[in-house]
Amino acid sequence: MDVVEIVPTFEQYAFTFGGVAPFRRITPGTALRLWSDDAFCGVLRSTKDLASEKVDLRFVNPQTGPFYVEGAEPGDTLALHFVAMEPARDWGASAAIPFFGGLTSTDRVATLQDPLPDTTWIYELDRARNTVTFAAQHSDLSVELPVEPMLGTVGVAPPGGEVRSSLVPERFGGNMDTPQMRPGTTCFLGVNVEGALFSIGDGHYRQGEGEACGTAVEGAMTTTLIVELIKGRAPAWPRLEDDAHWMTVGSSRPLEDAWRIGQVELVRWFGELYGLHPMDAYQLLSQITEAPIANVVDANYSAVLKARKSLLPAASAYGGLHAELRQRAATL
Amino acid sequence: MDVVEIVPTFEQYAFTFGGVAPFRRITPGTALRLWSDDAFCGVLRSTKDLASEKVDLRFVNPQTGPFYVEGAEPGDTLALHFVAMEPARDWGASAAIPFFGGLTSTDRVATLQDPLPDTTWIYELDRARNTVTFAAQHSDLSVELPVEPMLGTVGVAPPGGEVRSSLVPERFGGNMDTPQMRPGTTCFLGVNVEGALFSIGDGHYRQGEGEACGTAVEGAMTTTLIVELIKGRAPAWPRLEDDAHWMTVGSSRPLEDAWRIGQVELVRWFGELYGLHPMDAYQLLSQITEAPIANVVDANYSAVLKARKSLLPAASAYGGLHAELRQRAATL
Amino acid sequence: MDVVEIVPTFEQYAFTFGGVAPFRRITPGTALRLWSDDAFCGVLRSTKDLASEKVDLRFVNPQTGPFYVEGAEPGDTLALHFVAMEPARDWGASAAIPFFGGLTSTDRVATLQDPLPDTTWIYELDRARNTVTFAAQHSDLSVELPVEPMLGTVGVAPPGGEVRSSLVPERFGGNMDTPQMRPGTTCFLGVNVEGALFSIGDGHYRQGEGEACGTAVEGAMTTTLIVELIKGRAPAWPRLEDDAHWMTVGSSRPLEDAWRIGQVELVRWFGELYGLHPMDAYQLLSQITEAPIANVVDANYSAVLKARKSLLPAASAYGGLHAELRQRAATL
Amino acid sequence: MDVVEIVPTFEQYAFTFGGVAPFRRITPGTALRLWSDDAFCGVLRSTKDLASEKVDLRFVNPQTGPFYVEGAEPGDTLALHFVAMEPARDWGASAAIPFFGGLTSTDRVATLQDPLPDTTWIYELDRARNTVTFAAQHSDLSVELPVEPMLGTVGVAPPGGEVRSSLVPERFGGNMDTPQMRPGTTCFLGVNVEGALFSIGDGHYRQGEGEACGTAVEGAMTTTLIVELIKGRAPAWPRLEDDAHWMTVGSSRPLEDAWRIGQVELVRWFGELYGLHPMDAYQLLSQITEAPIANVVDANYSAVLKARKSLLPAASAYGGLHAELRQRAATL
Repeated sequence: MDVVEIVPTFEQYAFTFGGVAPFRRITPGTALRLWSDDAFCGVLRSTKDLASEKVDLRFVNPQTGPFYVEGAEPGDTLALHFVAMEPARDWGASAAIPFFGGLTSTDRVATLQDPLPDTTWIYELDRARNTVTFAAQHSDLSVELPVEPMLGTVGVAPPGGEVRSSLVPERFGGNMDTPQMRPGTTCFLGVNVEGALFSIGDGHYRQGEGEACGTAVEGAMTTTLIVELIKGRAPAWPRLEDDAHWMTVGSSRPLEDAWRIGQVELVRWFGELYGLHPMDAYQLLSQITEAPIANVVDANYSAVLKARKSLLPAASAYGGLHAELRQRAATL
Repeated sequence: MDVVEIVPTFEQYAFTFGGVAPFRRITPGTALRLWSDDAFCGVLRSTKDLASEKVDLRFVNPQTGPFYVEGAEPGDTLALHFVAMEPARDWGASAAIPFFGGLTSTDRVATLQDPLPDTTWIYELDRARNTVTFAAQHSDLSVELPVEPMLGTVGVAPPGGEVRSSLVPERFGGNMDTPQMRPGTTCFLGVNVEGALFSIGDGHYRQGEGEACGTAVEGAMTTTLIVELIKGRAPAWPRLEDDAHWMTVGSSRPLEDAWRIGQVELVRWFGELYGLHPMDAYQLLSQITEAPIANVVDANYSAVLKARKSLLPAASAYGGLHAELRQRAATL
Repeated sequence: MDVVEIVPTFEQYAFTFGGVAPFRRITPGTALRLWSDDAFCGVLRSTKDLASEKVDLRFVNPQTGPFYVEGAEPGDTLALHFVAMEPARDWGASAAIPFFGGLTSTDRVATLQDPLPDTTWIYELDRARNTVTFAAQHSDLSVELPVEPMLGTVGVAPPGGEVRSSLVPERFGGNMDTPQMRPGTTCFLGVNVEGALFSIGDGHYRQGEGEACGTAVEGAMTTTLIVELIKGRAPAWPRLEDDAHWMTVGSSRPLEDAWRIGQVELVRWFGELYGLHPMDAYQLLSQITEAPIANVVDANYSAVLKARKSLLPAASAYGGLHAELRQRAATL
Repeated sequence: MDVVEIVPTFEQYAFTFGGVAPFRRITPGTALRLWSDDAFCGVLRSTKDLASEKVDLRFVNPQTGPFYVEGAEPGDTLALHFVAMEPARDWGASAAIPFFGGLTSTDRVATLQDPLPDTTWIYELDRARNTVTFAAQHSDLSVELPVEPMLGTVGVAPPGGEVRSSLVPERFGGNMDTPQMRPGTTCFLGVNVEGALFSIGDGHYRQGEGEACGTAVEGAMTTTLIVELIKGRAPAWPRLEDDAHWMTVGSSRPLEDAWRIGQVELVRWFGELYGLHPMDAYQLLSQITEAPIANVVDANYSAVLKARKSLLPAASAYGGLHAELRQRAATL
């Protein structure tokens, strides 16, 4: 199986979902190996590079794409199976951007207080040990942390002619910022426009749940994925599957609405998977769901809802596509 | 080490935090073995017992206690180390109570819609296999699930003379409904009144994160715990420690505020544990925190914030009390 | 008609709804003339008196009461008709209390930022002109504003044995902080305990909607009111009536839930007043409701929902009690 | 002064802010007389026309425009002064669209409940009496209500290349759904793209605050307005001025964030108008702001913050442009 390699130039970065001409047309079944820049377009390279001076929040999370998937029509389901994610630089960066993040007032949670001190942290990557190192800036501590690569941003073009910033998580995916978007995961997204027009970006060498300060260990990434198309059956909100879990992602504000969206979508999926009445799915999920917060910092907040397969009878979604993609991935 | 056994009568149940005379006075260091009734006071015993007919939401989550801890004063820290939790009946119950839960309108999320169908599920306990069985009521599926006992409700009397229903999670603990409140966990609570006046209840044979429908597998429980007192050093919000994690619990509405509270409390705790400046703790926790939602159904919503010890340098809280209590627990 | 005059001593102040022994027993029909201290218990007397040094947030909004109303039983409706409110001092005070208010982080909207500067403003009262004067503290401006007296806090004891701080607005009334609680208004509250146990306090010489900084022009007040009792018919949430409007008050978090609560209660009331189906009341109110925010700063946020009587056919609530009380008030 | 008359054809309707080619280029100072269709594109014409059958929520609030204002650049301020709004049909329509509105679960406030009954109300217009008549559908009541025309939707193209549905209220204006957008009001909007690209639509013959059911008395409208341009000085969020009030509009979720945004913008404006320090503006506004909720039903919720000019020293904004536009309007 061939893999199409793509490394975009800066001029080819996309900063929105929708509103951008297709970068490349591909057929379902294609494997891609995509380079993506970090959320800051690579401008934070030392602790002296401050976000307030170098980062323009209208142009972050540069996307690699969008890809036009031949045959994809509104109402179809796009499946993206992530095979591998490899750090593409030897360092990652994180920053406390003024008035951005979860433990500060923002342009939405508007207060009259001063911002927190603009601070940048650089995480050196040790490829041999597969770690990045946190080095405190205002105090004295250094901690080596395992690399756990993931993508903050995976999405398709929105419906209704909308165009949304790559800072936004929504029904169309986007900047969900969940550690679940990692190698081994298949992401199912409803197609809203012809060709689906998906893109990826915002690689994280690691991230805590909630992404408290608004930025992860942001790093350029090389992502290998396989693209598939299912006719019809578009989920209302993003669904994820890995070997261990059925998952959904809800994104809205306040955070309880993100949770409600994701939990209802999982109830709906359980109806399909197990033939369960919504009330029974609601009950069963009340006893088995795991509910990690994804982010509380983006334009919408995101919550992940997970059901562990090992607790449940065998079932398969979309004709067992995830298992099949796992096999195909092994041949790359 | 002796263990004080207590089985309250129905008349001895407490339904509030604060406002109740001490049930028993104990000294720090005491081990207790407490029987607690289920959230419904045991009235839902078959699928024909409906919550709308049998349950009065003003009198749920019956508490065993409150216990007056000798020497406890406002500003002190109460430590409750949970040694064991054993189902005290051979079945648990769960219910979709009309206008109560996360995927329905409620008295707060007020709409004009009809309620969901009032439904009760009974979970039979298999002690040999250590499982409870979900049996669908509106469709056809049966799933055997592992018993993972926990307490929904652990709290002390509130400050300022307030008295709160045992349905409420707050700064004083209470109905946090997190699966983290399980054997092996030490819970640290700030003391607000002389004697602390803590109580426990609302045993769950298992619960998913979020407690979507508003009720877990509710069951009578026998809980063994050790009570300790630390002079001063009251945390602002509940802190939990087990062998693997540092944890905090925030409770408020909307859910992002619960998250903010817990995340700030963990920043504060990391300042104590590692001497970190708040900005550095904020950054480090952004990359390592796990953030499971506890509940989105109670009078306040709750979020748990967890940091995995194995990622961090060695540290000890409250003079290493948790480790010491683990050892004492082994001798019971 | 006699008026019972009451001026409590400091020791007689109540700081909670519920949990306090009756201050006085009265019969329905009694007229009271009550002195109440300001929210700060009178300790902020000059711009040099800072809240961080002098105010303990556990003991603010001192209540005059509670009054035990003979014959009042759970399920009954207490009617409080406000006849007059007169400033009882020659100055009011307002303050930007650190980490309290709407445009700052708080213990709930928790961030890592520094607090706003602790500032006190004193408003001199000009009785002849019936004005208070705003004098800028950090800049140079002085503005004379009309006195529009109101009570921040009017409530009864909560149900279920709860005791709540006088900072809390809830189903039982409490610290709703709406300018609608003024002379000429009748407030209807559901009775939860025998005797109702109502109290009042937190006089404001004037207040904007939202009470943005968390404090109004706080002032000691002399309030004249008539107390009546309606058997049964308890509203779920506070209802207000004046000559011009039907009103309800919802209190919760987030603010949209406060709005939902109040709007549903007004739909319910319109069912009683006009025999309207809920869908028709919903539609009609969508076109005529006024919806001023009351506060976004208390333990719960509050919204007021108002329908102008002049737009509607004649109707009367509770047997026309408001009109009757207006007449009785004229005889005092 | 000439007035340019425009009546778009159906094919010329815009359904987004941004993403649409200019409908017409105009110079600052132009007066326009614009016909706009109702929110439903005129398809609900009798109570038998149901929204679930006839309305596609991706294509509502058809916009008349967008207009390219010569010379407008990012950072400039667009001023739209509304001179007159006249109902363009003899009836208006309102509907309880399934899973849309404030007292129902929605795609965001997701629950498992059934929708409310899909119902349409038609309001006949009496031009002589200047009223519309509410006629109950599920019960028996008829109420004649004054026509108070307003526009739900007024906005410019968003920044950052975004394109947003005309259902969305945001920083760029849009579907704010406030009764303040009426004849006599000047609306100031920050310009984000060359030409500003403003449009209007969603006429309401009247609307309550909150727009509870999600739809007002929706009606085709003929709107006369004067367009002006101020170089630079773009407000962060929409500002409104009429003869009596300084106003701002915040839009976000949860509703308290919409309030915070608007209140901070008014603090900022008061700094410009009166030279006030933010803390003093915060204090003064705490005592005088009126805070009507605009809507709790759109993609974002909106709150209006108003300060009454008669309470304040004389001041003028943007060089007294509003007063000048009032004079110009009188000459049309």
